[in-house]
Amino acid sequence: MFKKFYSQKHNRPKTDKKSVIFGSHSVIEIIKSGKTIDKVFLNKNSNNSVHNELIKLLDEQKIPYSKVPIEKLNRITEKNHQGVIAFLSAVDFVLLENVIESTYEKGIVPLILVLDSITDVRNFGAIVRTAVCAGVNAIVVPAKNSVAIGGDALKTSSGALAHMNICRVDNIKRAIVYLKNSGLRILACTEKAEESVFEVDLAIPIALLFGSEGDGIMPDNLTIADQSIKIPMFGKIESLNVSVAAAVILYESIRQREKLGIK
Amino acid sequence: MFKKFYSQKHNRPKTDKKSVIFGSHSVIEIIKSGKTIDKVFLNKNSNNSVHNELIKLLDEQKIPYSKVPIEKLNRITEKNHQGVIAFLSAVDFVLLENVIESTYEKGIVPLILVLDSITDVRNFGAIVRTAVCAGVNAIVVPAKNSVAIGGDALKTSSGALAHMNICRVDNIKRAIVYLKNSGLRILACTEKAEESVFEVDLAIPIALLFGSEGDGIMPDNLTIADQSIKIPMFGKIESLNVSVAAAVILYESIRQREKLGIK
Repeated sequence: MFKKFYSQKHNRPKTDKKSVIFGSHSVIEIIKSGKTIDKVFLNKNSNNSVHNELIKLLDEQKIPYSKVPIEKLNRITEKNHQGVIAFLSAVDFVLLENVIESTYEKGIVPLILVLDSITDVRNFGAIVRTAVCAGVNAIVVPAKNSVAIGGDALKTSSGALAHMNICRVDNIKRAIVYLKNSGLRILACTEKAEESVFEVDLAIPIALLFGSEGDGIMPDNLTIADQSIKIPMFGKIESLNVSVAAAVILYESIRQREKLGIK
Repeated sequence: MFKKFYSQKHNRPKTDKKSVIFGSHSVIEIIKSGKTIDKVFLNKNSNNSVHNELIKLLDEQKIPYSKVPIEKLNRITEKNHQGVIAFLSAVDFVLLENVIESTYEKGIVPLILVLDSITDVRNFGAIVRTAVCAGVNAIVVPAKNSVAIGGDALKTSSGALAHMNICRVDNIKRAIVYLKNSGLRILACTEKAEESVFEVDLAIPIALLFGSEGDGIMPDNLTIADQSIKIPMFGKIESLNVSVAAAVILYESIRQREKLGIK
Protein backbone atom coordinates (compact mmCIF):
# COMPACT_ATOMS: atom_id res chain seq x y z
CA MET A 1 0.00 0.00 0.00
CA PHE A 2 1.06 3.53 -0.63
CA LYS A 3 1.71 5.78 2.32
CA LYS A 4 -1.46 7.57 3.33
CA PHE A 5 -2.10 11.01 1.93
CA TYR A 6 -4.02 12.02 5.01
CA SER A 7 -4.47 10.58 8.42
CA GLN A 8 -7.35 8.70 9.90
CA LYS A 9 -7.39 10.78 13.04
CA HIS A 10 -10.73 12.33 13.64
CA ASN A 11 -10.63 12.44 17.39
CA ARG A 12 -13.67 13.19 19.41
CA PRO A 13 -13.27 15.78 22.14
CA LYS A 14 -12.85 14.31 25.60
CA THR A 15 -12.49 16.06 28.92
CA ASP A 16 -8.80 16.53 29.45
CA LYS A 17 -8.28 16.17 33.18
CA LYS A 18 -4.59 17.01 33.11
CA SER A 19 -5.30 20.53 31.91
CA VAL A 20 -7.70 21.41 34.78
CA ILE A 21 -6.32 23.04 37.95
CA PHE A 22 -8.61 23.76 40.91
CA GLY A 23 -8.42 25.49 44.32
CA SER A 24 -7.71 29.22 44.86
CA HIS A 25 -4.10 28.86 45.97
CA SER A 26 -3.21 26.27 43.32
CA VAL A 27 -4.58 28.51 40.59
CA ILE A 28 -2.73 31.59 41.95
CA GLU A 29 0.51 29.59 42.03
CA ILE A 30 0.08 28.21 38.52
CA ILE A 31 -0.50 31.74 37.18
CA LYS A 32 2.58 33.05 39.02
CA SER A 33 4.63 30.12 37.63
CA GLY A 34 4.15 31.59 34.16
CA LYS A 35 2.07 28.69 32.75
CA THR A 36 -0.36 29.85 30.07
CA ILE A 37 -3.94 29.74 31.32
CA ASP A 38 -6.75 29.39 28.83
CA LYS A 39 -9.54 30.60 31.12
CA VAL A 40 -10.69 30.58 34.76
CA PHE A 41 -14.14 29.86 36.20
CA LEU A 42 -14.99 31.51 39.54
CA ASN A 43 -17.97 30.83 41.80
CA LYS A 44 -20.07 33.95 41.31
CA ASN A 45 -21.12 33.97 44.96
CA SER A 46 -17.61 33.83 46.41
CA ASN A 47 -16.25 37.00 47.95
CA ASN A 48 -13.19 36.54 50.13
CA SER A 49 -9.72 38.03 50.18
CA VAL A 50 -8.10 35.13 48.26
CA HIS A 51 -10.72 35.41 45.50
CA ASN A 52 -10.16 39.15 45.30
CA GLU A 53 -6.38 38.63 45.09
CA LEU A 54 -6.97 36.12 42.30
CA ILE A 55 -9.24 38.48 40.34
CA LYS A 56 -6.62 41.24 40.61
CA LEU A 57 -4.01 38.83 39.25
CA LEU A 58 -6.29 37.71 36.41
CA ASP A 59 -6.94 41.32 35.44
CA GLU A 60 -3.22 42.16 35.55
CA GLN A 61 -2.28 39.17 33.41
CA LYS A 62 -5.29 39.65 31.07
CA ILE A 63 -6.44 36.07 31.62
CA PRO A 64 -10.11 35.56 30.64
CA TYR A 65 -12.41 34.56 33.51
CA SER A 66 -16.12 34.04 34.06
CA LYS A 67 -18.18 34.15 37.24
CA VAL A 68 -20.41 31.09 37.11
CA PRO A 69 -22.92 29.28 39.36
CA ILE A 70 -21.27 26.79 41.74
CA GLU A 71 -23.19 23.95 40.02
CA LYS A 72 -21.12 24.50 36.89
CA LEU A 73 -17.90 24.10 38.89
CA ASN A 74 -19.28 20.99 40.57
CA ARG A 75 -19.97 19.44 37.18
CA ILE A 76 -16.33 19.92 36.13
CA THR A 77 -14.77 18.33 39.23
CA GLU A 78 -16.08 16.50 42.25
CA LYS A 79 -12.99 17.54 44.22
CA ASN A 80 -12.75 20.53 46.55
CA HIS A 81 -12.39 23.34 44.01
CA GLN A 82 -12.96 26.18 46.54
CA GLY A 83 -14.91 28.06 43.88
CA VAL A 84 -11.99 28.29 41.43
CA ILE A 85 -11.16 26.18 38.37
CA ALA A 86 -8.48 27.07 35.82
CA PHE A 87 -7.92 25.48 32.41
CA LEU A 88 -4.34 25.29 31.24
CA SER A 89 -3.64 26.19 27.66
CA ALA A 90 -2.28 23.54 25.32
CA VAL A 91 -0.03 26.16 23.72
CA ASP A 92 1.98 29.18 24.75
CA PHE A 93 0.42 32.16 23.06
CA VAL A 94 2.62 34.47 21.05
CA LEU A 95 2.39 38.22 20.52
CA LEU A 96 0.93 39.21 17.16
CA GLU A 97 3.43 42.08 16.95
CA ASN A 98 6.34 39.64 17.29
CA VAL A 99 4.98 37.34 14.59
CA ILE A 100 4.51 40.17 12.08
CA GLU A 101 7.94 41.68 12.79
CA SER A 102 9.70 38.33 12.52
CA THR A 103 7.82 37.45 9.33
CA TYR A 104 8.91 40.65 7.61
CA GLU A 105 12.47 40.27 8.94
CA LYS A 106 12.73 36.81 7.39
CA GLY A 107 11.48 38.16 4.05
CA ILE A 108 8.27 36.14 4.26
CA VAL A 109 5.06 37.63 2.82
CA PRO A 110 2.65 37.38 5.80
CA LEU A 111 -0.28 34.98 5.58
CA ILE A 112 -2.41 35.32 8.72
CA LEU A 113 -5.73 33.78 9.71
CA VAL A 114 -8.14 35.69 11.95
CA LEU A 115 -10.80 33.39 13.40
CA ASP A 116 -13.47 35.51 15.05
CA SER A 117 -15.71 33.45 17.35
CA ILE A 118 -15.15 29.98 15.91
CA THR A 119 -16.75 27.90 18.66
CA ASP A 120 -16.71 24.33 17.31
CA VAL A 121 -13.50 22.69 18.46
CA ARG A 122 -13.52 20.24 15.52
CA ASN A 123 -13.70 23.07 13.02
CA PHE A 124 -10.96 24.93 14.89
CA GLY A 125 -8.72 21.85 15.03
CA ALA A 126 -9.27 21.12 11.33
CA ILE A 127 -8.36 24.71 10.40
CA VAL A 128 -5.19 24.61 12.52
CA ARG A 129 -4.12 21.36 10.85
CA THR A 130 -4.60 22.78 7.35
CA ALA A 131 -2.94 26.07 8.38
CA VAL A 132 0.20 24.21 9.52
CA CYS A 133 0.31 22.27 6.22
CA ALA A 134 -0.10 25.51 4.25
CA GLY A 135 2.58 27.36 6.21
CA VAL A 136 0.32 30.03 7.77
CA ASN A 137 2.36 32.40 9.99
CA ALA A 138 -0.16 32.82 12.79
CA ILE A 139 -3.79 32.36 13.77
CA VAL A 140 -5.41 35.23 15.68
CA VAL A 141 -8.26 34.33 18.05
CA PRO A 142 -10.24 36.43 20.52
CA ALA A 143 -9.82 35.71 24.25
CA LYS A 144 -13.61 35.51 24.61
CA ASN A 145 -16.22 33.83 22.40
CA SER A 146 -13.78 31.31 20.97
CA VAL A 147 -12.98 27.65 21.49
CA ALA A 148 -10.81 26.72 24.45
CA ILE A 149 -7.23 26.33 23.20
CA GLY A 150 -6.82 23.21 25.33
CA GLY A 151 -6.27 19.50 25.01
CA ASP A 152 -9.38 19.02 22.89
CA ALA A 153 -8.19 21.55 20.31
CA LEU A 154 -4.78 19.85 20.26
CA LYS A 155 -6.44 16.49 19.62
CA THR A 156 -8.85 17.67 16.92
CA SER A 157 -5.89 19.30 15.13
CA SER A 158 -4.07 15.91 15.18
CA GLY A 159 -1.29 17.60 17.14
CA ALA A 160 -0.84 20.45 14.65
CA LEU A 161 -1.75 23.06 17.28
CA ALA A 162 1.68 22.58 18.85
CA HIS A 163 3.28 23.80 15.59
CA MET A 164 1.18 26.92 15.03
CA ASN A 165 1.64 30.45 16.38
CA ILE A 166 -1.60 31.27 18.17
CA CYS A 167 -2.13 34.95 19.03
CA ARG A 168 -4.88 35.44 21.58
CA VAL A 169 -6.08 39.03 21.66
CA ASP A 170 -8.44 40.96 23.95
CA ASN A 171 -9.94 42.91 21.10
CA ILE A 172 -10.18 41.34 17.66
CA LYS A 173 -11.07 44.64 15.97
CA ARG A 174 -7.94 46.29 17.36
CA ALA A 175 -5.88 43.32 16.11
CA ILE A 176 -7.36 43.68 12.62
CA VAL A 177 -6.55 47.39 12.61
CA TYR A 178 -3.00 46.57 13.73
CA LEU A 179 -2.63 44.07 10.86
CA LYS A 180 -3.97 46.65 8.42
CA ASN A 181 -1.54 49.27 9.67
CA SER A 182 1.26 46.73 9.32
CA GLY A 183 0.66 46.55 5.59
CA LEU A 184 -1.58 43.48 5.40
CA ARG A 185 -4.68 43.48 3.24
CA ILE A 186 -7.69 42.32 5.31
CA LEU A 187 -9.87 39.91 3.32
CA ALA A 188 -13.25 39.04 4.81
CA CYS A 189 -14.31 35.55 3.70
CA THR A 190 -18.09 35.51 3.27
CA GLU A 191 -20.53 34.07 0.76
CA LYS A 192 -22.11 37.53 0.49
CA ALA A 193 -19.00 38.82 -1.28
CA GLU A 194 -19.07 39.90 -4.92
CA GLU A 195 -15.57 38.86 -5.84
CA SER A 196 -14.37 35.31 -6.22
CA VAL A 197 -11.27 34.19 -4.36
CA PHE A 198 -9.87 33.22 -7.77
CA GLU A 199 -9.94 36.83 -9.00
CA VAL A 200 -8.16 38.40 -6.05
CA ASP A 201 -4.41 38.86 -5.46
CA LEU A 202 -3.50 36.60 -2.54
CA ALA A 203 0.26 36.74 -3.09
CA ILE A 204 0.56 40.04 -1.16
CA PRO A 205 0.64 40.30 2.66
CA ILE A 206 -2.87 39.23 3.71
CA ALA A 207 -5.00 38.40 6.72
CA LEU A 208 -7.99 36.15 6.01
CA LEU A 209 -10.93 36.88 8.30
CA PHE A 210 -13.48 34.16 9.10
CA GLY A 211 -16.54 34.69 11.30
CA SER A 212 -18.50 32.36 13.53
CA GLU A 213 -20.19 29.24 12.16
CA GLY A 214 -23.62 30.62 13.05
CA ASP A 215 -23.51 34.37 12.50
CA GLY A 216 -20.63 35.00 10.12
CA ILE A 217 -18.37 38.02 10.39
CA MET A 218 -19.37 40.78 12.83
CA PRO A 219 -20.45 43.98 10.99
CA ASP A 220 -17.84 46.01 12.88
CA ASN A 221 -15.05 43.80 11.61
CA LEU A 222 -16.50 43.63 8.13
CA THR A 223 -16.42 47.42 7.93
CA ILE A 224 -12.68 47.60 8.54
CA ALA A 225 -11.87 44.79 6.10
CA ASP A 226 -10.38 45.95 2.79
CA GLN A 227 -12.40 43.55 0.65
CA SER A 228 -14.79 40.61 0.87
CA ILE A 229 -14.15 37.40 -1.06
CA LYS A 230 -16.27 34.34 -1.74
CA ILE A 231 -15.80 30.80 -3.02
CA PRO A 232 -17.85 30.05 -6.17
CA MET A 233 -20.75 27.64 -5.60
CA PHE A 234 -22.44 25.48 -8.23
CA GLY A 235 -24.75 23.14 -6.38
CA LYS A 236 -28.00 23.11 -4.48
CA ILE A 237 -26.11 23.49 -1.22
CA GLU A 238 -24.78 27.00 -0.78
CA SER A 239 -22.49 26.67 2.17
CA LEU A 240 -19.16 25.01 2.77
CA ASN A 241 -17.94 23.97 6.18
CA VAL A 242 -15.69 26.73 7.58
CA SER A 243 -12.67 24.43 7.72
CA VAL A 244 -13.15 23.49 4.06
CA ALA A 245 -13.63 27.15 3.07
CA ALA A 246 -10.43 28.10 4.91
CA ALA A 247 -8.51 25.29 3.16
CA VAL A 248 -9.67 26.33 -0.33
CA ILE A 249 -8.73 30.00 0.20
CA LEU A 250 -5.40 29.22 1.92
CA TYR A 251 -4.32 26.91 -0.88
CA GLU A 252 -5.34 29.41 -3.56
CA SER A 253 -2.99 31.83 -1.83
CA ILE A 254 -0.26 29.14 -1.81
CA ARG A 255 -0.83 28.49 -5.52
CA GLN A 256 -0.50 32.18 -6.41
CA ARG A 257 2.63 32.58 -4.28
CA GLU A 258 4.30 29.46 -5.73
CA LYS A 259 3.60 30.69 -9.25
CA LEU A 260 5.40 33.96 -8.49
CA GLY A 261 8.20 32.25 -6.56
CA ILE A 262 7.16 34.03 -3.36
CA LYS A 263 7.70 32.28 -0.06
CA MET B 1 -24.85 40.26 10.98
CA PHE B 2 -23.92 39.04 7.54
CA LYS B 3 -25.38 35.82 6.34
CA LYS B 4 -23.20 32.94 7.31
CA PHE B 5 -20.61 31.74 4.84
CA TYR B 6 -20.83 28.22 6.13
CA SER B 7 -23.17 26.39 8.40
CA GLN B 8 -22.74 25.37 11.98
CA LYS B 9 -23.95 21.88 11.34
CA HIS B 10 -21.46 19.34 12.43
CA ASN B 11 -23.80 16.56 13.29
CA ARG B 12 -22.67 13.56 15.20
CA PRO B 13 -23.72 10.23 13.78
CA LYS B 14 -26.68 8.68 15.58
CA THR B 15 -28.37 5.38 14.98
CA ASP B 16 -31.08 6.06 12.48
CA LYS B 17 -33.91 3.71 13.42
CA LYS B 18 -36.11 4.63 10.49
CA SER B 19 -33.63 3.20 8.02
CA VAL B 20 -33.47 -0.25 9.65
CA ILE B 21 -35.82 -3.02 8.47
CA PHE B 22 -35.86 -6.44 10.15
CA GLY B 23 -37.50 -9.83 9.70
CA SER B 24 -37.01 -12.15 6.70
CA HIS B 25 -40.32 -11.44 5.01
CA SER B 26 -40.21 -7.68 5.61
CA VAL B 27 -36.74 -7.49 4.10
CA ILE B 28 -37.77 -9.60 1.07
CA GLU B 29 -40.79 -7.32 0.54
CA ILE B 30 -38.76 -4.13 0.85
CA ILE B 31 -36.27 -5.42 -1.74
CA LYS B 32 -39.09 -6.39 -4.11
CA SER B 33 -40.68 -2.94 -3.64
CA GLY B 34 -37.64 -1.43 -5.34
CA LYS B 35 -36.35 0.53 -2.31
CA THR B 36 -32.58 0.93 -2.38
CA ILE B 37 -30.93 -1.22 0.29
CA ASP B 38 -27.54 -0.21 1.60
CA LYS B 39 -26.63 -3.61 3.08
CA VAL B 40 -28.11 -6.66 4.80
CA PHE B 41 -26.89 -8.53 7.88
CA LEU B 42 -27.81 -12.23 8.10
CA ASN B 43 -27.43 -14.57 11.09
CA LYS B 44 -24.55 -16.79 9.98
CA ASN B 45 -26.12 -19.84 11.63
CA SER B 46 -29.50 -19.53 9.94
CA ASN B 47 -30.28 -22.02 7.19
CA ASN B 48 -33.91 -22.25 6.20
CA SER B 49 -35.81 -21.87 2.95
CA VAL B 50 -36.76 -18.23 3.56
CA HIS B 51 -33.11 -17.33 4.22
CA ASN B 52 -32.06 -19.15 1.10
CA GLU B 53 -34.70 -17.33 -0.95
CA LEU B 54 -33.45 -14.04 0.50
CA ILE B 55 -29.81 -14.81 -0.34
CA LYS B 56 -30.80 -15.66 -3.91
CA LEU B 57 -32.63 -12.33 -4.16
CA LEU B 58 -29.65 -10.42 -2.68
CA ASP B 59 -27.32 -12.05 -5.21
CA GLU B 60 -29.67 -11.27 -8.09
CA GLN B 61 -30.02 -7.62 -7.07
CA LYS B 62 -26.31 -7.27 -6.21
CA ILE B 63 -27.13 -6.02 -2.72
CA PRO B 64 -24.15 -6.34 -0.33
CA TYR B 65 -24.71 -8.68 2.61
CA SER B 66 -22.68 -10.12 5.47
CA LYS B 67 -23.21 -13.25 7.55
CA VAL B 68 -22.69 -12.20 11.14
CA PRO B 69 -23.01 -13.69 14.67
CA ILE B 70 -26.52 -13.37 16.10
CA GLU B 71 -25.13 -11.18 18.91
CA LYS B 72 -24.39 -8.45 16.36
CA LEU B 73 -28.01 -8.52 15.18
CA ASN B 74 -29.24 -8.42 18.77
CA ARG B 75 -27.19 -5.30 19.42
CA ILE B 76 -28.88 -3.51 16.50
CA THR B 77 -32.45 -4.28 17.53
CA GLU B 78 -34.12 -5.91 20.51
CA LYS B 79 -37.10 -6.80 18.37
CA ASN B 80 -37.69 -10.14 16.65
CA HIS B 81 -35.32 -9.82 13.68
CA GLN B 82 -35.52 -13.51 12.66
CA GLY B 83 -31.82 -13.38 11.77
CA VAL B 84 -32.22 -10.66 9.10
CA ILE B 85 -31.62 -6.91 9.30
CA ALA B 86 -31.54 -4.59 6.28
CA PHE B 87 -30.37 -0.99 6.17
CA LEU B 88 -32.18 1.27 3.76
CA SER B 89 -30.09 3.62 1.69
CA ALA B 90 -30.55 7.36 2.12
CA VAL B 91 -30.17 7.80 -1.62
CA ASP B 92 -31.14 6.01 -4.80
CA PHE B 93 -27.93 4.97 -6.49
CA VAL B 94 -27.38 5.89 -10.10
CA LEU B 95 -25.57 4.02 -12.85
CA LEU B 96 -22.10 5.37 -13.59
CA GLU B 97 -22.67 4.76 -17.31
CA ASN B 98 -25.78 6.96 -17.25
CA VAL B 99 -23.98 9.79 -15.46
CA ILE B 100 -21.06 9.81 -17.90
CA GLU B 101 -23.33 9.66 -20.95
CA SER B 102 -25.58 12.43 -19.68
CA THR B 103 -22.60 14.59 -18.72
CA TYR B 104 -21.14 14.38 -22.22
CA GLU B 105 -24.57 14.91 -23.79
CA LYS B 106 -25.01 18.15 -21.84
CA GLY B 107 -21.59 19.35 -22.97
CA ILE B 108 -20.22 19.23 -19.43
CA VAL B 109 -16.56 18.26 -18.90
CA PRO B 110 -16.85 15.36 -16.43
CA LEU B 111 -15.54 15.86 -12.88
CA ILE B 112 -15.91 12.60 -10.96
CA LEU B 113 -14.77 11.56 -7.47
CA VAL B 114 -13.81 7.94 -6.77
CA LEU B 115 -13.69 7.28 -3.03
CA ASP B 116 -12.12 3.88 -2.46
CA SER B 117 -12.73 2.59 1.07
CA ILE B 118 -13.47 5.85 2.88
CA THR B 119 -14.81 4.47 6.15
CA ASP B 120 -15.28 7.55 8.35
CA VAL B 121 -18.83 8.80 7.87
CA ARG B 122 -17.85 12.36 8.89
CA ASN B 123 -15.15 12.49 6.22
CA PHE B 124 -17.56 11.03 3.66
CA GLY B 125 -20.29 13.52 4.57
CA ALA B 126 -17.86 16.44 4.43
CA ILE B 127 -16.63 15.37 0.98
CA VAL B 128 -20.19 15.02 -0.35
CA ARG B 129 -21.06 18.51 0.90
CA THR B 130 -18.03 20.06 -0.79
CA ALA B 131 -18.63 18.00 -3.95
CA VAL B 132 -22.18 19.37 -4.25
CA CYS B 133 -20.91 22.95 -3.79
CA ALA B 134 -18.22 22.37 -6.43
CA GLY B 135 -20.64 20.82 -8.93
CA VAL B 136 -19.09 17.34 -9.05
CA ASN B 137 -21.04 15.08 -11.45
CA ALA B 138 -20.90 11.87 -9.41
CA ILE B 139 -19.16 10.11 -6.55
CA VAL B 140 -18.20 6.48 -7.12
CA VAL B 141 -18.03 4.24 -4.04
CA PRO B 142 -17.45 0.50 -3.67
CA ALA B 143 -20.32 -1.66 -2.37
CA LYS B 144 -17.99 -3.16 0.25
CA ASN B 145 -15.41 -1.49 2.50
CA SER B 146 -17.10 1.87 2.43
CA VAL B 147 -19.29 3.89 4.76
CA ALA B 148 -22.98 3.07 4.89
CA ILE B 149 -24.83 5.49 2.59
CA GLY B 150 -27.55 5.88 5.19
CA GLY B 151 -29.06 8.47 7.48
CA ASP B 152 -25.75 9.19 9.21
CA ALA B 153 -24.06 10.02 5.90
CA LEU B 154 -27.00 12.26 5.01
CA LYS B 155 -26.65 14.09 8.33
CA THR B 156 -22.88 14.51 8.22
CA SER B 157 -23.23 15.93 4.70
CA SER B 158 -25.73 18.51 6.04
CA GLY B 159 -28.28 17.09 3.62
CA ALA B 160 -26.03 17.43 0.56
CA LEU B 161 -26.11 13.66 -0.06
CA ALA B 162 -29.64 14.02 -1.42
CA HIS B 163 -28.27 16.28 -4.19
CA MET B 164 -25.34 14.12 -5.32
CA ASN B 165 -25.24 11.27 -7.83
CA ILE B 166 -23.82 8.32 -5.91
CA CYS B 167 -22.66 5.37 -8.05
CA ARG B 168 -22.17 2.24 -5.99
CA VAL B 169 -20.10 -0.33 -7.85
CA ASP B 170 -19.22 -3.97 -7.17
CA ASN B 171 -15.70 -3.58 -8.44
CA ILE B 172 -13.94 -0.24 -8.08
CA LYS B 173 -11.09 -1.24 -10.40
CA ARG B 174 -13.53 -2.06 -13.18
CA ALA B 175 -15.25 1.29 -12.63
CA ILE B 176 -11.92 3.12 -12.93
CA VAL B 177 -11.13 1.26 -16.16
CA TYR B 178 -14.60 2.20 -17.45
CA LEU B 179 -13.95 5.89 -16.65
CA LYS B 180 -10.58 5.70 -18.35
CA ASN B 181 -12.10 4.12 -21.45
CA SER B 182 -14.73 6.87 -21.42
CA GLY B 183 -12.04 9.48 -21.95
CA LEU B 184 -11.47 10.59 -18.35
CA ARG B 185 -7.96 11.06 -17.01
CA ILE B 186 -7.60 9.14 -13.72
CA LEU B 187 -5.70 11.19 -11.15
CA ALA B 188 -4.61 9.40 -7.98
CA CYS B 189 -4.43 11.86 -5.08
CA THR B 190 -1.55 10.84 -2.81
CA GLU B 191 1.19 12.66 -0.92
CA LYS B 192 3.70 10.28 -2.53
CA ALA B 193 3.12 11.93 -5.90
CA GLU B 194 5.83 13.95 -7.62
CA GLU B 195 3.60 16.46 -9.30
CA SER B 196 1.72 19.24 -7.55
CA VAL B 197 -1.99 19.65 -8.17
CA PHE B 198 -1.18 23.20 -9.27
CA GLU B 199 0.94 21.99 -12.20
CA VAL B 200 -1.58 19.56 -13.65
CA ASP B 201 -4.37 20.21 -16.17
CA LEU B 202 -7.64 19.69 -14.30
CA ALA B 203 -9.85 21.37 -16.89
CA ILE B 204 -10.09 18.16 -18.96
CA PRO B 205 -12.44 15.24 -18.17
CA ILE B 206 -11.05 13.82 -14.89
CA ALA B 207 -11.77 11.34 -12.15
CA LEU B 208 -10.05 12.08 -8.82
CA LEU B 209 -9.18 8.93 -6.90
CA PHE B 210 -8.87 9.01 -3.10
CA GLY B 211 -7.94 6.00 -0.97
CA SER B 212 -8.81 5.01 2.56
CA GLU B 213 -7.89 7.22 5.52
CA GLY B 214 -5.58 4.55 6.88
CA ASP B 215 -3.97 2.82 3.93
CA GLY B 216 -4.26 5.22 1.02
CA ILE B 217 -4.90 4.09 -2.53
CA MET B 218 -4.75 0.34 -3.25
CA PRO B 219 -1.70 -0.55 -5.41
CA ASP B 220 -3.95 -2.18 -8.02
CA ASN B 221 -5.91 1.02 -8.51
CA LEU B 222 -2.79 3.15 -8.42
CA THR B 223 -1.38 1.11 -11.31
CA ILE B 224 -4.28 1.91 -13.59
CA ALA B 225 -4.30 5.63 -12.70
CA ASP B 226 -2.86 7.92 -15.39
CA GLN B 227 -0.98 10.14 -12.96
CA SER B 228 -0.50 10.82 -9.25
CA ILE B 229 -0.89 14.33 -7.84
CA LYS B 230 -0.11 15.85 -4.44
CA ILE B 231 -0.90 19.00 -2.50
CA PRO B 232 2.21 20.99 -1.54
CA MET B 233 3.02 20.95 2.18
CA PHE B 234 5.06 23.50 4.11
CA GLY B 235 4.67 22.67 7.78
CA LYS B 236 5.73 20.13 10.33
CA ILE B 237 2.52 18.21 9.77
CA GLU B 238 2.57 16.32 6.50
CA SER B 239 -0.97 15.18 6.11
CA LEU B 240 -4.25 16.89 5.41
CA ASN B 241 -7.60 15.43 6.35
CA VAL B 242 -9.05 13.62 3.31
CA SER B 243 -12.07 15.94 3.15
CA VAL B 244 -9.79 18.99 3.12
CA ALA B 245 -7.52 17.42 0.47
CA ALA B 246 -10.55 16.68 -1.72
CA ALA B 247 -11.79 20.27 -1.34
CA VAL B 248 -8.44 21.81 -2.33
CA ILE B 249 -8.11 19.63 -5.44
CA LEU B 250 -11.76 20.03 -6.48
CA TYR B 251 -11.60 23.80 -6.23
CA GLU B 252 -8.31 23.93 -8.14
CA SER B 253 -10.16 22.13 -10.91
CA ILE B 254 -13.02 24.65 -10.66
CA ARG B 255 -10.53 27.54 -10.84
CA GLN B 256 -8.89 26.16 -13.99
CA ARG B 257 -12.25 25.50 -15.65
CA GLU B 258 -13.61 28.98 -14.80
CA LYS B 259 -10.47 30.58 -16.22
CA LEU B 260 -11.03 28.78 -19.53
CA GLY B 261 -14.77 29.36 -19.49
CA ILE B 262 -15.43 25.63 -19.28
CA LYS B 263 -18.48 24.38 -17.46
